[in-house]
Amino acid sequence: MQPLPGFRDFLPADCAARNYIFARWREVARRYGFVEWDGPVLEPTELYRKKSGDEIVGQLFNFTDKGDREVALRPELTPTLARIVAAHEREFKKPLKWFSIGSCFRYEKQQRGRLREHIQLNCDIIGETGLAADIELVALSIDILRAFGFSEKDFVVRISDREFWTDFLQSQNVGQDRWDEILQAIDKSEREPREKTSERLGSLAEPVLDILNKGGRSEKLEKLVEGLRARGLADFVDVDVRIVRGLAYYTGIVFEVFDRVGKLRAVAGGGRYDNLIEQLSAGAAKLPAVGFAMGDVVLGELIKDRPAASQKMETTLRDESKIDIYVVIAKEKRRADALAQVQQLRDNGYRVDYPLAPVKVGKQFQTAEDLGASIAILYGDEWPQVKVKTLATREEQPVSTGDLIARVDSLLR
Amino acid sequence: MQPLPGFRDFLPADCAARNYIFARWREVARRYGFVEWDGPVLEPTELYRKKSGDEIVGQLFNFTDKGDREVALRPELTPTLARIVAAHEREFKKPLKWFSIGSCFRYEKQQRGRLREHIQLNCDIIGETGLAADIELVALSIDILRAFGFSEKDFVVRISDREFWTDFLQSQNVGQDRWDEILQAIDKSEREPREKTSERLGSLAEPVLDILNKGGRSEKLEKLVEGLRARGLADFVDVDVRIVRGLAYYTGIVFEVFDRVGKLRAVAGGGRYDNLIEQLSAGAAKLPAVGFAMGDVVLGELIKDRPAASQKMETTLRDESKIDIYVVIAKEKRRADALAQVQQLRDNGYRVDYPLAPVKVGKQFQTAEDLGASIAILYGDEWPQVKVKTLATREEQPVSTGDLIARVDSLLR
Repeated sequence: MQPLPGFRDFLPADCAARNYIFARWREVARRYGFVEWDGPVLEPTELYRKKSGDEIVGQLFNFTDKGDREVALRPELTPTLARIVAAHEREFKKPLKWFSIGSCFRYEKQQRGRLREHIQLNCDIIGETGLAADIELVALSIDILRAFGFSEKDFVVRISDREFWTDFLQSQNVGQDRWDEILQAIDKSEREPREKTSERLGSLAEPVLDILNKGGRSEKLEKLVEGLRARGLADFVDVDVRIVRGLAYYTGIVFEVFDRVGKLRAVAGGGRYDNLIEQLSAGAAKLPAVGFAMGDVVLGELIKDRPAASQKMETTLRDESKIDIYVVIAKEKRRADALAQVQQLRDNGYRVDYPLAPVKVGKQFQTAEDLGASIAILYGDEWPQVKVKTLATREEQPVSTGDLIARVDSLLR
Repeated sequence: MQPLPGFRDFLPADCAARNYIFARWREVARRYGFVEWDGPVLEPTELYRKKSGDEIVGQLFNFTDKGDREVALRPELTPTLARIVAAHEREFKKPLKWFSIGSCFRYEKQQRGRLREHIQLNCDIIGETGLAADIELVALSIDILRAFGFSEKDFVVRISDREFWTDFLQSQNVGQDRWDEILQAIDKSEREPREKTSERLGSLAEPVLDILNKGGRSEKLEKLVEGLRARGLADFVDVDVRIVRGLAYYTGIVFEVFDRVGKLRAVAGGGRYDNLIEQLSAGAAKLPAVGFAMGDVVLGELIKDRPAASQKMETTLRDESKIDIYVVIAKEKRRADALAQVQQLRDNGYRVDYPLAPVKVGKQFQTAEDLGASIAILYGDEWPQVKVKTLATREEQPVSTGDLIARVDSLLR
């Protein structure tokens, strides 16, 4: 009776926590003027092979469907976005500010905390080459995390630039055929011993390690930080050229978001990918883009880890899960009358529950408390009067049923 | 650049319409005291084989994963629900009122309007045998559709009872081994010529066709209608014993929701399944249940078809898609100042957009209108004053930047 390994069941409390994350994601993305899109969880395998090469296929949930199509559960949202944008871009004014929330799948060896299905928020700005778009996007990633109650003490956006490194490689007369290999070595340098990195870098070991030790800067990176400083967000970012991100398709600014303590994996990551849409659409649409993805799993761990964020979530969830009214049926002969008013109260937008089967009155009040009801309405011998009890104060008032809605409105609105 | 056949891309307008449906579903389910759960889209194939037999496997997106597991994209939510409830039922007070919204997949021959992925709302009451649960659930299905602006002129819930037929078959001394076959014949009788139905029914043709012609009633069905009448919902239902529903696991009340004109497929369907959880959990949990599913596709067609419902949706979506404020940057040297205030306005919860690159002022105002902004704030030579323009009235006022938030609050709150 277990889900498949790496997949999750969301019991009501888990589902509420997940929806809390979705709600913050949507709320802040909308504040930034982003609009939501979505695509299928199943795509032609070719879509991923095109973007990331054959090695990605080894990590996919891919199969041949009954119509002999090579298909895969999406490992990420960007290829679907590129496909949709390439097909429909003429219908929209640029730049597009689009976001999506969706399940992504990878058939990875199971490790602690690594799931085979997780949910990603993707935010992308498409059709704008200027650094203003990169700044807007980094600011969005910061403000999303701030909406969870995190401050600059909780997380940091480490910002880098692929061009910083490609400019350097050009200045060193390194052939383009070696760039990917060297960028990968830099990407891995934080997680590997220095000797291993030196070995990977070969003749470039000395100048690269020198930059990695001293830190690198560039005019573009300074401007980016300046743009964030103008918004009061500079304390959330560090320029850090050790970040290059593994994926080959990034072309400019790249960034990753980490908890300050550095004990979790990246909370989010992204960057500029100016050639991907053109490449995936076989030249049909030539659109620069910058985007990031944030997963629900690491974010959820970070929320649990930080008291301010976890309290904020708990308070919100407690308030949201409450019902408004519990209808106590003290006399079964009043059930039909009670239900007629349950209907009326629900029609007025209230969250109302009641016992489906006869239950002792004391137990009914207990259920009312358990469900977080603000008031209980008791249907008993007093009919056509009912008792309205405010559960927080234990105040109780008789109300004639004709006045009930007005009384409830005055208590709850 | 197309999605796979039978799958859908949700461009922003489509996604907004989908989210509108989700929001109504959630809103009414919550009013009824239901809580949300979710499960994986991928499950062991065995879960479906157990419930529905081998023939279901022919309609699944199923495959063998890289760990040699037989897995399938879920064709429906009920088996996952049963699996989760069986594993966790002790953690919860009964009855459970649970709902879920999720993608479901079937590898069907493609027909007009038949998709391979659609999204279902499932609502289930678990742990209550009484008819009160069936009534609550049918009432919920009605109120969900009412929330979209549909009336009793738009749709009807056709209610039947499997027990009505099994009682009849028992009274006719028909062996249990023939029940399924006869129920299937009744299920198909509306879509097949009478002769074909007669042939399927054999010796039972005369009494069954007699019931189908005259209509059947039972005490239980009368009570159910009575319960809905007490809530003012009787006009939304017809007792109609022609409904038996195809699936073998229903044990009592069954119902299907159709548009009144009868030109679309069922909008929703469900019923009581008192043995399924026990059966799927190999006896680990013995819980009666009643539930229904509603799909987004037929519902979407019905909304489009009915002016009241489609206008309600359009009005809601127009209001929801609006941004609050568009910041017009008339002088580029004011960009940093403007962005500092964009940040402040967004921090205050407003939806704010602005041009990422230099654009002529007239075009910026056009974008403000296109995005449905309520006000535009112009940053130009007047700095540190800005102009605040209410777009609906074209009224324009100079405001000093220190007073801006207060002024915006008074205009928009």
